[in-house]
Amino acid sequence: MTEMNKTWILRARPVGEVRESDLELVEAPLAPLNEGEVRARTIYLSLDPTNRIWMSDMDAYLPPVGLGDPMRGGGLGLVTESRFGGLEPGDIVNTGLAHWSLYNTLPGAGLAKMPQLPGVPLTAFMGPIGATGMTAYFGLMDIGKPKEGETVVVSAAAGAVGSMVGQIAKIQGCRVVGIAGSDDKCKWLVETAGFDAAINYKKEDVGAMLDKHCPNGIDINFENVGGEIMDTVIARLNDFSRMPLCGLISTYNATDPVPGPYNFANLLMRRTLVKGFIVIDYYPRFAEGIQQMAQWLMEGKLKFETDVVRGLENAPSSLSRLFEGKNLGKLVVQVSEEPNRS
Amino acid sequence: MTEMNKTWILRARPVGEVRESDLELVEAPLAPLNEGEVRARTIYLSLDPTNRIWMSDMDAYLPPVGLGDPMRGGGLGLVTESRFGGLEPGDIVNTGLAHWSLYNTLPGAGLAKMPQLPGVPLTAFMGPIGATGMTAYFGLMDIGKPKEGETVVVSAAAGAVGSMVGQIAKIQGCRVVGIAGSDDKCKWLVETAGFDAAINYKKEDVGAMLDKHCPNGIDINFENVGGEIMDTVIARLNDFSRMPLCGLISTYNATDPVPGPYNFANLLMRRTLVKGFIVIDYYPRFAEGIQQMAQWLMEGKLKFETDVVRGLENAPSSLSRLFEGKNLGKLVVQVSEEPNRS
Repeated sequence: MTEMNKTWILRARPVGEVRESDLELVEAPLAPLNEGEVRARTIYLSLDPTNRIWMSDMDAYLPPVGLGDPMRGGGLGLVTESRFGGLEPGDIVNTGLAHWSLYNTLPGAGLAKMPQLPGVPLTAFMGPIGATGMTAYFGLMDIGKPKEGETVVVSAAAGAVGSMVGQIAKIQGCRVVGIAGSDDKCKWLVETAGFDAAINYKKEDVGAMLDKHCPNGIDINFENVGGEIMDTVIARLNDFSRMPLCGLISTYNATDPVPGPYNFANLLMRRTLVKGFIVIDYYPRFAEGIQQMAQWLMEGKLKFETDVVRGLENAPSSLSRLFEGKNLGKLVVQVSEEPNRS
Repeated sequence: MTEMNKTWILRARPVGEVRESDLELVEAPLAPLNEGEVRARTIYLSLDPTNRIWMSDMDAYLPPVGLGDPMRGGGLGLVTESRFGGLEPGDIVNTGLAHWSLYNTLPGAGLAKMPQLPGVPLTAFMGPIGATGMTAYFGLMDIGKPKEGETVVVSAAAGAVGSMVGQIAKIQGCRVVGIAGSDDKCKWLVETAGFDAAINYKKEDVGAMLDKHCPNGIDINFENVGGEIMDTVIARLNDFSRMPLCGLISTYNATDPVPGPYNFANLLMRRTLVKGFIVIDYYPRFAEGIQQMAQWLMEGKLKFETDVVRGLENAPSSLSRLFEGKNLGKLVVQVSEEPNRS
């Protein structure tokens, strides 16, 4: 009996929020492997704000997913079959830019096998030592260039990227203020992740709270959100400040043109450096980033959370958790069980 | 008989365009010099877009000029009296951040004496080898980092800064497209300054013309203007493009909040580097910039124009030439005659 695969197909370009009818879960039999290929059963599928970008027909950093094509996505997979010399069943790999599928069939060359690190759960490879951790690490270290004693503000601070940015900045000796959307998140940021302060933008006056918590102004704004919050932070930047531009999640569902920051002129006055980046730009340096983050992780210096939704069938509906700010830490869909690795 | 000085005093914060009633020309007797001071009679007073910023009570890169205080400005002055060892009557100095005055009384220490360069008129010290030239040189070379074969777009291209940016970019082997506000300016840019193309934004569809003249996209946007033109350029930036943020002249007279670029998200998608800068940040490196620009100038590689208005009394009313785009090249007020230096 041929085993069946399940794949989410993009059927329509979402207008505003993604509706379930924009995608369709399709079953199809698995084809036999070709030489050099491996088959990986998805354990964790990564859900990220950028998924929404890929669904839109806009001039983004990657071509959009075509209508009728499998939805692009990746995560961790368990190798179940292999016709590639370097990988065998039971190995766990990062599937990279694959599909929202139960099984992905991939060229074995270039697939990264996940090592087993003492005391580090598999989900860390979706967080601090995965793509979101690398986003935080390179965006902050390479663009932000934090110096001891500086003040760092990060938006979407309790998300997978933001929570790492703040903790890396603390390791660098910075004052760190996070902006997040609930009291629970703010409590986690300060009490668990060690941020100096956190602002609940849904309840507090962000400008007034930034004035309070950043008495020496803001040297680095790690931007994940855009919109009004970004504007409020830009108004408080110091001379020669830096702004790694990582994401603009508040705008991805927009159906009308979104104005840029009203305080754009302050980027001139403050001589701010703004630099857009996408984590894949840093792929050649991932080894460096993963080594450093893994070390901090094993030293207990990085706390992380994983927001787990179960079942591939729940992938599209779960994406909204990111846009509604429901997730604490890395949002993943658990598609199949973790293997016993002990 | 004590000689009289004339100084423009800022009386009111302009709302929108500067009106003559916002300033007052006041006469007062010159005080005797103190030890270490020199007195310089202004030959050329520099008029620059940033003068408008200094008149506003905004959080800019320098404190605003106080109401009742002399208007800030500088240019070239002829030393008429000196109690400073290194300078003597007849020397020509750059007065730096002095006043809109017939005479400025300045500490001699740190005043730069202008050398005599073969075949180079004095007005070059207001242009290519003055502050505007340094703005162009460092903004383009240090932030833009042009590479041979890249495409550079510059707005306010026929202005003092823009015209130098384009010519320096040509020397670096780039394709250069200028955006300016009249057919005469566009003609000068292409026929005299050697730009590859120029777009008259008052008559042409800037987006369509950029598409035509930048078939390989835009690698560097040297931004002087802001507003709709900036947005149109940002939409056409290439991956890993750079945007030296030098000025936003279209917004300086605004009385309402000005939205940032609607294509702000493209800075993320294209991984663009945006860097605000003010030429005074580069003061420690001026010698390097002046040496290079002077060499190119003497080699005949830099063409420049000076837009000369005569009479200190015309300074406030002439500032509008910048905002209406009437000047070709560096706008100066000739306050007194050049000395005979042959």
